[in-house]
Amino acid sequence: MDLPSYITGLCEGEACFTVSFSLRRKLRLGIEVRPSFSLSQHKRNLEVVKLLREYFGVGGIRFSRADQNYKFEVRSVRDLIKAVIPHFREYRLISPRKRDFDRFAKVCELVYASKHKSLTGMRRIIDLAYGMNPSGRRRYKKDKLLRLLDKVKE
Amino acid sequence: MDLPSYITGLCEGEACFTVSFSLRRKLRLGIEVRPSFSLSQHKRNLEVVKLLREYFGVGGIRFSRADQNYKFEVRSVRDLIKAVIPHFREYRLISPRKRDFDRFAKVCELVYASKHKSLTGMRRIIDLAYGMNPSGRRRYKKDKLLRLLDKVKE
Repeated sequence: MDLPSYITGLCEGEACFTVSFSLRRKLRLGIEVRPSFSLSQHKRNLEVVKLLREYFGVGGIRFSRADQNYKFEVRSVRDLIKAVIPHFREYRLISPRKRDFDRFAKVCELVYASKHKSLTGMRRIIDLAYGMNPSGRRRYKKDKLLRLLDKVKE
Repeated sequence: MDLPSYITGLCEGEACFTVSFSLRRKLRLGIEVRPSFSLSQHKRNLEVVKLLREYFGVGGIRFSRADQNYKFEVRSVRDLIKAVIPHFREYRLISPRKRDFDRFAKVCELVYASKHKSLTGMRRIIDLAYGMNPSGRRRYKKDKLLRLLDKVKE
């Protein structure tokens, strides 16, 4: 078995690349951006979740009592850049999720290069994120975030 | 990318090995056994479903309007024996689903060898099938099937 190819197959069906936003008054732009990569499995598949953690060597595992799932998640932008993104660049997804991944990777790179601290950078990030297939409901409409930025002084 | 390893990764999370039973008066034992292997994906992942069909070279694809899914399914016992089971014997699943697969493979072999036509064979098949993690609700309780067999003359 070729482990990297197995990992991509597993993630094809089940992984989530998400970019979420929170309003934070303390930040100059008022918006925090948080990319995360995750995969949930029913608790009986804990072994698979552990394998994923071991393979990437970053991130954490937590249990959700509500849906009896273990979730592997990487939230550190540095870890996403160093471990997760290179994997999916080499072992490409096949489904349209690969386009979400490309946008996700771009967002991580912008954040890693501190571009989210500039108005232009944050607008580009919001554009990329809202072009992704949402996994779950979005807390804010795109317009609301962009209007917030309009009020920030350059 | 190593395609067989990718396929196993994909199936780890999403594939179903099921053995279902129907009551059929016309059969000597009164019970029909139907193994099937399937994987469903949201319609946007049709490409993945087609890849699976192409890789195994057997089975069919159908669309479920209700859940907007494409489902790849192999029901022919011959095709399961020739194409599906050898794949998962060489590229083993990692999660406990692999034990379901082993039971499933045994059921297919028994049916392929026409053992489901004897009382002993059918009892063994029922035992194996009801030892599997059910994907969905079972139509009949195990006891009901076994009691039906008790009434059949050797």
